[in-house]
Amino acid sequence: MTSHDNCIFCQIVAGNAQSQIVFENDKVMAFMDVMPASSGHTLLVTKNHYDSVLDASPDDIAEIGKVSVAIANAVKQASGADGIGVHQLNGGAAGQTVFHYHMHFIPQSEGAHAAIHSREMGDMDSIAAMADKVRLALA
Amino acid sequence: MTSHDNCIFCQIVAGNAQSQIVFENDKVMAFMDVMPASSGHTLLVTKNHYDSVLDASPDDIAEIGKVSVAIANAVKQASGADGIGVHQLNGGAAGQTVFHYHMHFIPQSEGAHAAIHSREMGDMDSIAAMADKVRLALA
Repeated sequence: MTSHDNCIFCQIVAGNAQSQIVFENDKVMAFMDVMPASSGHTLLVTKNHYDSVLDASPDDIAEIGKVSVAIANAVKQASGADGIGVHQLNGGAAGQTVFHYHMHFIPQSEGAHAAIHSREMGDMDSIAAMADKVRLALA
Repeated sequence: MTSHDNCIFCQIVAGNAQSQIVFENDKVMAFMDVMPASSGHTLLVTKNHYDSVLDASPDDIAEIGKVSVAIANAVKQASGADGIGVHQLNGGAAGQTVFHYHMHFIPQSEGAHAAIHSREMGDMDSIAAMADKVRLALA
């Protein structure tokens, strides 16, 4: 597996940084965003390090696509939201802040539009409780 | 192939509505957005009709993922943008306006952040010229 020093998502994938992991297979991993744009905000990443989709392996992104259907449904069920925004940002000009390929799943409810990024750490107990709901929905 | 009456993307896939198609295989098709959020705005859709990712076949979305790497690179090269926002909206609450699975590729440049949707038709000559550049980048 390709991994970069000082990449927080590589550290999570390697088990060297704490996170609320909700799904994992040989190619991809999903965990809760610690700065949720809305409750239930989940990230799906490649285990291999790519800066963005632009330098990624098509086979790894195919796996992201395949898994994304179950993740989107589980995040919707867990959050009770009306819709799910799926966002994947490439380059600082597009709003990317962590330079390891990742796809955001952001619950959206009528009348309460959430941005893609929050600027504040979420409440860890609430995030852990939401992670349990996502895991249950995926089970 | 599953197709819905009165779905504009099903009509494009069937060849019954005009569009600037830049890529096509047995499962997916890419064409220019006629209301571009920025110059080069491209859509990647499943040929089968799904309302959103929530009811989609994981195999079809795997193909979307696989192809998305080349589309993102081609749109970046054709537009000359600094980054590419990839957005895929599910449900009206998430901003979805056409209820057929589609992924947006939106060129983003420093200091000129583009929204996901425009509300105005683009200039068709400019869109056709950009389609030529995307096709060339994919070739």
